[in-house]
Amino acid sequence: MGRTSDAKERLLCVAFDLIWTSSYGSVSVDTICERARVNKGSFYHFFPSKADLAVAAYEEFWQQKRPLYDRVFSPQVPPLERIAQWCELIYTGQKERADQCGRVLGCPYACLGAEMSTQDEKVRLKAEEVFARSCKYLESALADAKREKLVDIKDPKATAETIYAVVMGLLLQAKVRNDVEVLRDLQPTVMRLLGAKAVAT
Amino acid sequence: MGRTSDAKERLLCVAFDLIWTSSYGSVSVDTICERARVNKGSFYHFFPSKADLAVAAYEEFWQQKRPLYDRVFSPQVPPLERIAQWCELIYTGQKERADQCGRVLGCPYACLGAEMSTQDEKVRLKAEEVFARSCKYLESALADAKREKLVDIKDPKATAETIYAVVMGLLLQAKVRNDVEVLRDLQPTVMRLLGAKAVAT
Repeated sequence: MGRTSDAKERLLCVAFDLIWTSSYGSVSVDTICERARVNKGSFYHFFPSKADLAVAAYEEFWQQKRPLYDRVFSPQVPPLERIAQWCELIYTGQKERADQCGRVLGCPYACLGAEMSTQDEKVRLKAEEVFARSCKYLESALADAKREKLVDIKDPKATAETIYAVVMGLLLQAKVRNDVEVLRDLQPTVMRLLGAKAVAT
Repeated sequence: MGRTSDAKERLLCVAFDLIWTSSYGSVSVDTICERARVNKGSFYHFFPSKADLAVAAYEEFWQQKRPLYDRVFSPQVPPLERIAQWCELIYTGQKERADQCGRVLGCPYACLGAEMSTQDEKVRLKAEEVFARSCKYLESALADAKREKLVDIKDPKATAETIYAVVMGLLLQAKVRNDVEVLRDLQPTVMRLLGAKAVAT
């Protein structure tokens, strides 16, 4: 076992990875502890339950990704380019993971939400929170695009939710078909739905 | 225990219901047997494993729904009206289930696929098969709509997959937000994406 100060970090990292590559239900506290080289006493010192660990792990992953999203969705970037870059990030990120493990993993939040939303309220709320944060990036980009007359949309918030739904739906199809190429045209598809031309990234 | 001839049917029905309302991972063979009033010996007489039961149960549910979908997507129905009716069916179906159990359940195939696609190949293939069947209905309706110049689209198959992705994504959002009203505007949203006017149903 490593230093206690690393134990929590290892639990978060291992839990996120195991749940994303398999599912919440298939991963036991025993397996997480074993892989993280942490004993069960330490686990329960840090987390009251597997659900609490999952929520913390998924929040930690989001926080790690946030600087990247903040850069992609920076107001310094032309608004449609933000959305285009986000689409490319999704494709390349999924491709990288699929190349590593031979399986398209889909969106970690969508998969956890799809599996657990009727069963654990705090897990559902975490998925909901992350969805709302992602939509906020899109909404802001779309509001800027509307003001700059790059898109002809009425309600940036509603449009953001629709675009987010398309992306989640295609990520799900990519996972279910185990074919990352479902996401190759994500960017032109999204731009077409916005009535905008594809953006060179 | 009821008649053996009913046992298989009860297993299919109970398995579908338990998995849809909770998740695949959270439902044990023991629980399914108990709820279906079938002993474990009989279970394994009918199904080699929980995955085989799940695949059979999800196929059975599809077959039960098929006459309804065939009617909604009948070539006798104007093409955009088919899609509009399908959207309404989804909203009312989800609302009915949510009113019954206090939780938005989302699409059973999408949730099972999101949870299990990296873990069990036959479950993944069943989800993929059902997705393809649903897209086929949409594709046919869109091809007719294109020929009748009701929509200006290039590729009915690609458009069908995009529309299906939107619907799956919104079903997922409805589940994660536990709010069926996410689906209330499904029909106008889909029609707007198709560049068509909302259809009165």
